[in-house]
Amino acid sequence: MYVFKTADTIITKVGIASEIGEHLSQLKQHVQKALLLTQPALQKSGAVEKVVASLNQAGVSVDVTTDVEPEPTLSNIETVYQATLNVTDYDVLIGLGGGSILDTTKLLSVMKTNDMSLDEMLGSDQVKQPGIPTVLIPTTSGTGAEVTPNAIVTLPEKELKIGVVSSYLLPNLVLIDAALTTGLPKPITAATGMDAFTHALESYISNKANPISDMFALEAIRLISANIETAYFNGGNIEARERMLIGSMYGGMALTAAGTAAVHAMAYPLGGKYKIAHGVANSMLLPHVTQFNMDAIETRLATVAEPMGIKKENQDEKEMAQAVVDRIVELTKILEIPQDLSAYGVQDSAIESMAVAALDVKRLMDNNPKQLTKEDVKAIYGKLLA
Amino acid sequence: MYVFKTADTIITKVGIASEIGEHLSQLKQHVQKALLLTQPALQKSGAVEKVVASLNQAGVSVDVTTDVEPEPTLSNIETVYQATLNVTDYDVLIGLGGGSILDTTKLLSVMKTNDMSLDEMLGSDQVKQPGIPTVLIPTTSGTGAEVTPNAIVTLPEKELKIGVVSSYLLPNLVLIDAALTTGLPKPITAATGMDAFTHALESYISNKANPISDMFALEAIRLISANIETAYFNGGNIEARERMLIGSMYGGMALTAAGTAAVHAMAYPLGGKYKIAHGVANSMLLPHVTQFNMDAIETRLATVAEPMGIKKENQDEKEMAQAVVDRIVELTKILEIPQDLSAYGVQDSAIESMAVAALDVKRLMDNNPKQLTKEDVKAIYGKLLA
Ligand SMILES: NC(=O)c1ccc[n+]([C@@H]2O[C@H](COP(=O)([O-])OP(=O)(O)OC[C@H]3O[C@@H](n4cnc5c(N)ncnc54)[C@H](O)[C@@H]3O)[C@@H](O)[C@H]2O)c1
Ligand SMILES: NC(=O)c1ccc[n+]([C@@H]2O[C@H](COP(=O)([O-])OP(=O)(O)OC[C@H]3O[C@@H](n4cnc5c(N)ncnc54)[C@H](O)[C@@H]3O)[C@@H](O)[C@H]2O)c1
Ligand SMILES: [Fe+2]
Ligand SMILES: [Fe+2]
Repeated sequence: MYVFKTADTIITKVGIASEIGEHLSQLKQHVQKALLLTQPALQKSGAVEKVVASLNQAGVSVDVTTDVEPEPTLSNIETVYQATLNVTDYDVLIGLGGGSILDTTKLLSVMKTNDMSLDEMLGSDQVKQPGIPTVLIPTTSGTGAEVTPNAIVTLPEKELKIGVVSSYLLPNLVLIDAALTTGLPKPITAATGMDAFTHALESYISNKANPISDMFALEAIRLISANIETAYFNGGNIEARERMLIGSMYGGMALTAAGTAAVHAMAYPLGGKYKIAHGVANSMLLPHVTQFNMDAIETRLATVAEPMGIKKENQDEKEMAQAVVDRIVELTKILEIPQDLSAYGVQDSAIESMAVAALDVKRLMDNNPKQLTKEDVKAIYGKLLA
Repeated sequence: MYVFKTADTIITKVGIASEIGEHLSQLKQHVQKALLLTQPALQKSGAVEKVVASLNQAGVSVDVTTDVEPEPTLSNIETVYQATLNVTDYDVLIGLGGGSILDTTKLLSVMKTNDMSLDEMLGSDQVKQPGIPTVLIPTTSGTGAEVTPNAIVTLPEKELKIGVVSSYLLPNLVLIDAALTTGLPKPITAATGMDAFTHALESYISNKANPISDMFALEAIRLISANIETAYFNGGNIEARERMLIGSMYGGMALTAAGTAAVHAMAYPLGGKYKIAHGVANSMLLPHVTQFNMDAIETRLATVAEPMGIKKENQDEKEMAQAVVDRIVELTKILEIPQDLSAYGVQDSAIESMAVAALDVKRLMDNNPKQLTKEDVKAIYGKLLA
């Protein structure tokens, strides 16, 4: 059995964020007062100003907050909630930013309507009521969080990140606007792009992979593989940027239908304890975990060579599968993804507890095509400390 | 700018219709009383009995109606409405059948909540309010109506079919169950399968084609091309049947995002006046309209050869595009699609008024990559009267 769900309405157009006011009719309810959650980088780029202007022109008053931290902790999210939704009613919450903003917007929406703490929402299907309407506008490509029923919360005291999973987190409206991502800095383009690639690849080899997730996963792999280098080296290329946004959205659709696996589980301790950016953590782990999985996924992995654009004549399955891993390694080098955990303060002595924490992310570890023992997990972390 | 919308939740599993009661929780509201719209063929096959048993076991009482006619007229739909929703309140409407049932279920849902006549709903975006919840279970593959915001109404006095288009027609839950289609008779398998193929191909060459509709269109073409002959000659093959259902659903997603074109516009008079089944009308027209469009779509059409599984080495674009049309002609012969309009009582003298009616379906004619004059339309109908 496999299930597909997504955002109510998705509109793609270069510049659409600056016309947001014209599209609020998609929400099918009158909007007068909006809360915009965003990041300082989007204020600097001028994007916030344009979004607010368009909303004002449509008769919508807007409060803006930039208090959400990257990869927000539970207490940061609660603080933002207290400062905004606890004191005012909004008709709609608008998230303009990377996954950190999108996830927080989704959470605030259901925190407002559910009589329970964020802590009680952690895990799958705990949320009881639909939230207030949300509009999500991704500015990285990215998490795909604009189309997933997940929101990730950092728990520093547990040295982990945990997901809230509920179909009530799916947004009402998504605007895909490549004009927002042309200024995305190179390291963020690289890390978030590889995060999107990881969503697609992990969904494709997930134990829960199915014909629907496969279609999205392979198309995401195709779009990201063909455009990530252009987006990285020539960030102003609007076509490459739009394809990266659509690719990362498809990655989100794939992971909604099939789930990510060991890479994401092992990334959570790196984010939770060492504040390594989510995309960086995934990109570091992806080649090693994929190589570890190889004997269980060789046939599937071989079929990824074609959409990655690296299929050669006269290669057998084994060679094609290995070429995929080699190409991923090559990409992480081209995109200058950090390779060394010690640069982030991770010490050999921490590996044991990181492995325990990673194995504890059962929701994702269960999707992995090959079971990992604690020794396996430690060996993989070890490769990043060589 | 392009927009994507679909059903809230889609679940695929062989046998899921017989477990429907377990999945009503997806509706997120308590269900006690359901109206099931279905067709006599589904009563004979035993499907209705299983669906009702599962609903009863979940504590849901069910009224069943089989009063919806194939390709229902406006007055038939109004009669069913008066006999059911005008006298009783239901928490959910369940459509179990082909496109005729799915479309009627969608319409009844909004007729209940909107204070307007069906007549006033015809056209785009006329419906004002969301309807009561709907569950759609397709038993042909098919119209893809389970995921489109359209419902088609036959208007015999106008000798035409007209669409109601509204995102309020999108259902809350879709169940994809290949166990329901293994008994689909050969001619219906052929005609509805080619209808699905037509949705994909017309969306792909539509003036409104875009990267999202293209992905669904090409995957639909791939799935249908690979499975339609097996489904036709070996109807019990459950895998081919499931792929046909997913393919026709993707066809519906493609047409939601891009729209069909001249084939559908020209099919409407054939259905409205001569009661030629929708899939048959489309299949008859598809090769001729595609050939007519050729000079405007050669490059695009050539790229369809690969997903159709007929790509040969060393063919140039022109040859590949022509091979696609030739293969469509071949398929209509293999699947024994009728080729002669006179067998349905269409006479030469009717062509003029049919052409006028077809050109009047501007919503679809506008999507066609090449504009058709009245003479063009008449010439194409004429080919089916030779
Ligand atoms: N919900 C899901 O399905 C899902 C999936 C994957 C990851 N996530 C979560 O998403 C978070 C990561 O999101 P992210 O990778 O998008 O990064 P992010 O949202 O944390 O943003 C990273 C940095 O990029 C900046 N930035 C964003 N857009 C910019 C732009 N257009 N121009 C310039 N700077 C810009 C931000 O200000 C921030 O400093 C993590 O918490 C991760 O766990 C969620
Ligand atoms: N809403 C949309 O987007 C959309 C798209 C295309 C077509 N349509 C409309 O859908 C209608 C056609 O639907 P259709 O082609 O699915 O045919 P249909 O619903 O009219 O059914 C055709 C015949 O097949 C029988 N049948 C259906 N399922 C069966 C099964 N599993 N076993 C045995 N018999 C079965 C029915 O009883 C009926 O006699 C037309 O009105 C057409 O205009 C709508
Ligand atoms: Fe991720
Ligand atoms: Fe059709």
